Amino acid sequence: MPLGEKAGWEKSESRYCGVEADFHDDIPQLLSLNLSSGSFDFIVAPLMDPTYRPSLMEKDKGGSCVPPFAGSDLVLSPSQWSSHVVGKISSWIDLDSEDEIVRMDSETTLKQEIAWAHHLSLQACLLPSPKGSSCANYARCVNQILQSLNNMQLWLRVPLVKIEEDSMDEKSENLLDSWELWNSFRLLCEHHTQLSIALDVLSELPLANSLGRWFGEPVRAALINTNSFLTNARGWPCLSKRHQKLVAGFFNHSVQIIITGKPIHALPKAGLDLAANHIDDNSKNMQRHPLKSYLDYVAYLFQRMDPLPEQERFELGYRDFLQSPLQPLMDNLEAQTYETFEKDSMKYIQYQRAICKALVDRVPDNEAAVLTTVLMVVGAGRGPLVRASLQAAEETGRSLKVYAVEKNPNAVVTLHSLVKLEGWENIVTIVSCDMRSWEAPEKADILVSELLGSFGDNELSPECLDGAQRFLKHDGISIPSSYTSFVQPVTASKLYNDVKSHKDVVHFETAYVVKVHNIARLAPCQPVFKFDHPNFSANKSNQRYKKLKFDLPIDTGSAMVHGFVGYFDATLYKDVHLGIEPSTATPNMFSWFAIFFPLRLPVCLHPGTPLELHFWRCCGSTKVWYEWCVTCPSSTSTPIHNSNGRSYWVGL
Amino acid sequence: MPLGEKAGWEKSESRYCGVEADFHDDIPQLLSLNLSSGSFDFIVAPLMDPTYRPSLMEKDKGGSCVPPFAGSDLVLSPSQWSSHVVGKISSWIDLDSEDEIVRMDSETTLKQEIAWAHHLSLQACLLPSPKGSSCANYARCVNQILQSLNNMQLWLRVPLVKIEEDSMDEKSENLLDSWELWNSFRLLCEHHTQLSIALDVLSELPLANSLGRWFGEPVRAALINTNSFLTNARGWPCLSKRHQKLVAGFFNHSVQIIITGKPIHALPKAGLDLAANHIDDNSKNMQRHPLKSYLDYVAYLFQRMDPLPEQERFELGYRDFLQSPLQPLMDNLEAQTYETFEKDSMKYIQYQRAICKALVDRVPDNEAAVLTTVLMVVGAGRGPLVRASLQAAEETGRSLKVYAVEKNPNAVVTLHSLVKLEGWENIVTIVSCDMRSWEAPEKADILVSELLGSFGDNELSPECLDGAQRFLKHDGISIPSSYTSFVQPVTASKLYNDVKSHKDVVHFETAYVVKVHNIARLAPCQPVFKFDHPNFSANKSNQRYKKLKFDLPIDTGSAMVHGFVGYFDATLYKDVHLGIEPSTATPNMFSWFAIFFPLRLPVCLHPGTPLELHFWRCCGSTKVWYEWCVTCPSSTSTPIHNSNGRSYWVGL
Repeated sequence: MPLGEKAGWEKSESRYCGVEADFHDDIPQLLSLNLSSGSFDFIVAPLMDPTYRPSLMEKDKGGSCVPPFAGSDLVLSPSQWSSHVVGKISSWIDLDSEDEIVRMDSETTLKQEIAWAHHLSLQACLLPSPKGSSCANYARCVNQILQSLNNMQLWLRVPLVKIEEDSMDEKSENLLDSWELWNSFRLLCEHHTQLSIALDVLSELPLANSLGRWFGEPVRAALINTNSFLTNARGWPCLSKRHQKLVAGFFNHSVQIIITGKPIHALPKAGLDLAANHIDDNSKNMQRHPLKSYLDYVAYLFQRMDPLPEQERFELGYRDFLQSPLQPLMDNLEAQTYETFEKDSMKYIQYQRAICKALVDRVPDNEAAVLTTVLMVVGAGRGPLVRASLQAAEETGRSLKVYAVEKNPNAVVTLHSLVKLEGWENIVTIVSCDMRSWEAPEKADILVSELLGSFGDNELSPECLDGAQRFLKHDGISIPSSYTSFVQPVTASKLYNDVKSHKDVVHFETAYVVKVHNIARLAPCQPVFKFDHPNFSANKSNQRYKKLKFDLPIDTGSAMVHGFVGYFDATLYKDVHLGIEPSTATPNMFSWFAIFFPLRLPVCLHPGTPLELHFWRCCGSTKVWYEWCVTCPSSTSTPIHNSNGRSYWVGL
Repeated sequence: MPLGEKAGWEKSESRYCGVEADFHDDIPQLLSLNLSSGSFDFIVAPLMDPTYRPSLMEKDKGGSCVPPFAGSDLVLSPSQWSSHVVGKISSWIDLDSEDEIVRMDSETTLKQEIAWAHHLSLQACLLPSPKGSSCANYARCVNQILQSLNNMQLWLRVPLVKIEEDSMDEKSENLLDSWELWNSFRLLCEHHTQLSIALDVLSELPLANSLGRWFGEPVRAALINTNSFLTNARGWPCLSKRHQKLVAGFFNHSVQIIITGKPIHALPKAGLDLAANHIDDNSKNMQRHPLKSYLDYVAYLFQRMDPLPEQERFELGYRDFLQSPLQPLMDNLEAQTYETFEKDSMKYIQYQRAICKALVDRVPDNEAAVLTTVLMVVGAGRGPLVRASLQAAEETGRSLKVYAVEKNPNAVVTLHSLVKLEGWENIVTIVSCDMRSWEAPEKADILVSELLGSFGDNELSPECLDGAQRFLKHDGISIPSSYTSFVQPVTASKLYNDVKSHKDVVHFETAYVVKVHNIARLAPCQPVFKFDHPNFSANKSNQRYKKLKFDLPIDTGSAMVHGFVGYFDATLYKDVHLGIEPSTATPNMFSWFAIFFPLRLPVCLHPGTPLELHFWRCCGSTKVWYEWCVTCPSSTSTPIHNSNGRSYWVGL
């Protein structure tokens, strides 16, 4: 039974809670003990008697000795096995033991148990945490298993530990950060998509930046031990504020919660009375799961969460889904695309504000009656900026002459009907032409455009406006007057694996539009390229080169950089801006998701080592493209991505 | 004119010497000045006036301004251009300048000059050394050029510098090692095969281990400045012992020598007299190239080198050529293969010595007349070990009964004729059978086999001998009695690129037999797997797991590990061994080249950081395979190679 249906959450976004159980040879009974009457949703249960050691089995029995599994496959229905049981692999196994017999026993047992779980069609197995700091043999064995595993997930249990050391001894520090262990394991297994994480949440939590890393990693479950709970004034278990925030993060990132440990909160009689709501104590106690109060508290945390805002709910399906950026210059947009973007009212409100200010600056109040401002909307589409311009004229009492220039003949059809419908024939002239080649009959006071992509210049706004500024007066205004792209390094194992699944270099050298969610932002954004409009200087070039240096907060610990997330911020006019850079993003706008630039080789960053990123905007005669690379840390320097735009480019 | 034909060197192994020239707008004259009458073989000459800056050209000339190249393509014949001229790219270019105009000018010029050199079909261009420690933009531009360069090589000029710092400040140290600069550049260009190195040899040389790194890198030329020469007692230029050794290394690795700089050895009159051999001084001086004495000295160093031993000469064509290892168990060897291996007399001498010792140990002198030793050659092939055994019996006066067991029916044919030809019918019984399934009529005193591959157990000697030891007496002797594999990390950019050229993972997860030459051995060999025979223990397994830690000599500096070279050493019997591990290799043996295990991602090692390698020998029911990975340095941890033997395995 889910932790409650929530308003504002999709059904698919329900959260479940499991419980870790001890070995029991009667699985049906174990299941009924833990799942009955509104209790837990699934159990994490050992599949094999923990005393089993293959080397102790009598050799001469030959094929007749059966491993001591917990019950046959027939004791539960296939759907019970797969929906209610996560297989817990024997926790004694230690594939990196110094003792060869322990290693051999561990390998045999691990393979037997996974094969059994596979036979039962379990959805997941919980792998015990590596015993020491070295895990190569464990990883080798798991990696072998992963090569032929159908759908099952393997959750590697990892304690959520990072001890802060002021010591300079790097080696000892490495051992104290469990992320390092995870990272080492998953690198050995080559980021396998079926290898994920079950975090053991302990009573002490690492610092916030270090915790943040895990949200870019494939965490599927979090095990919360009863001894991580505090006791509230009424004797009930509760979590610290930091733990609460972490659990909220887990809910937000579809991480299953699993309660583990013995009940250690002896509930006071009064508390139970309250909980039982005056129903007979004894009968209640009989049925009541000993860990029910912990489950109730987790359900309470879930219920207490704010519902998702409407926009977020709408965008749920886009989370971490890679899309190719639009090519609006080469291709003509479809009606559906115009429809979507025109609905972004916040964007047009900002444009209208900017146009108002420009009109007022252009024409003083005392000349409003006599002066007509020539405004050209370049890339008018189906007319939303024409409307915003006319509304701005009305709002400011300025008179306007509008040219609506649009290269897409299909959009021009709609423009004509709009102008007719609204009765704008005397004010608006529609020009069906590419702004780069149009010969304007007069020069404009104001040039308005919305040509920005998620990365600002990536839909070739600079090249288009270079063409259009031919018919802008020398003291004319461009709206936007400038825009800047931004990037930040991220951990994004989901995006990385999606790119990798194509098994080619091309996809690693392509930028993707994506609603980023399951990522860890490792450092604040930094500006990359800036373009100003108009730009009448003689030697101007739209080529750019930027070198960026990111320093991770020192308490982050080591982290994996799978790529860079890009954004833009545009100054429409003076103080009116529009953008998606997280720290200054315009609220309630949905026209742009972020852009993701992957790295062919993820770069592992260690504390104190900066990340040096190079970004180029290159221009050819028929296309524009980006190249990028990482040069520091030097031992993980990447190749230059997308040389000559071989994989990804925007056509002129 | 080559530096002389040498006895023992292939024609293709001739060495040439070039000279670096200043800009000259009359290339034919420049050529004749430098190449006439037994002087240099080629020139490294600027292609463009060094005062040229694109940004200073008059803009309004439009297409009419021609870059100031040194002469038209017609002044030399195509073959003169390509055999005698290496294009020297303008040394002022600086693509990583802080000054944007310098950057733009540099990019334009570099692209114009390379395009020109390409038009002339030059074989190579010399790229100026990066100006600072940062070279990303330079590399980006060169990388773009490399994407569409037909055959031309680009030699990046790199000063041969590594300053030893006792300081612990890593950052300052990095700047002082030019290898780091090269490494950064080539990583950005993704190990492009047309990007190579021209080393600037200075008067001070780095320490030996640091120098050694370069022999695993694609060094194509070495520029020796005249001021790196010392002056000998007679006033002539000469090189220090360390420089001489380095130049010998260059000769050995097909690195072209180029003399650069002004003549600074004012030869005394007496010296010239001696040199001119009493020919008229004046006329001699007229024709004499001012750098001739440096050239003569280099030629003298070449002439002085020892000729290649016959075996090396025979193996020249195999240098750094990747071969798939034999599968002698699954496949039957061909006659040619037997022919080659049987010629390796040193190997059979060692076997004969071992068999002698075993026979004497087995049968004391006083029983030699009455006892007959049963010796089985398992995998007898065409009989060389049968012969060695019989010779050992004769040498020691022991009497022998020999079984020759061979699974290849084609070899058995030859065995029968050999036995008949030699009249061994009463001593030798031929068994046409796989030793793993043969039911022997009696038990053996001595089991002799030659089943070893380059990596010892990689041709499944352990599995074969496990089968054969069924018919060995419990106190019987196996020759070999044990064998051990060894590995060492190497820089091997040639091998890495050859593996990479297949563009798949399979080739990166395969081991190759190879006569390694153009490699840098970064650390001494370490033992990996050992097998002892016979092994009658109950729980024996031929699976192995070994974790190895390599520490590079601290004066090496940073280095790139492209993979691991493997060898074996076998104890035939007591103190008689046979092997190819370099420090103990049996001399004059040619049956085995080394084996190379590549890394999918080369690992960059920094001083003081150990390299941790894991190696597994895994056994399935139908095959045996290796898996390997690197776990330290942790930031460059590799995936586990060849999981489940998916790419490379040896069939049982």
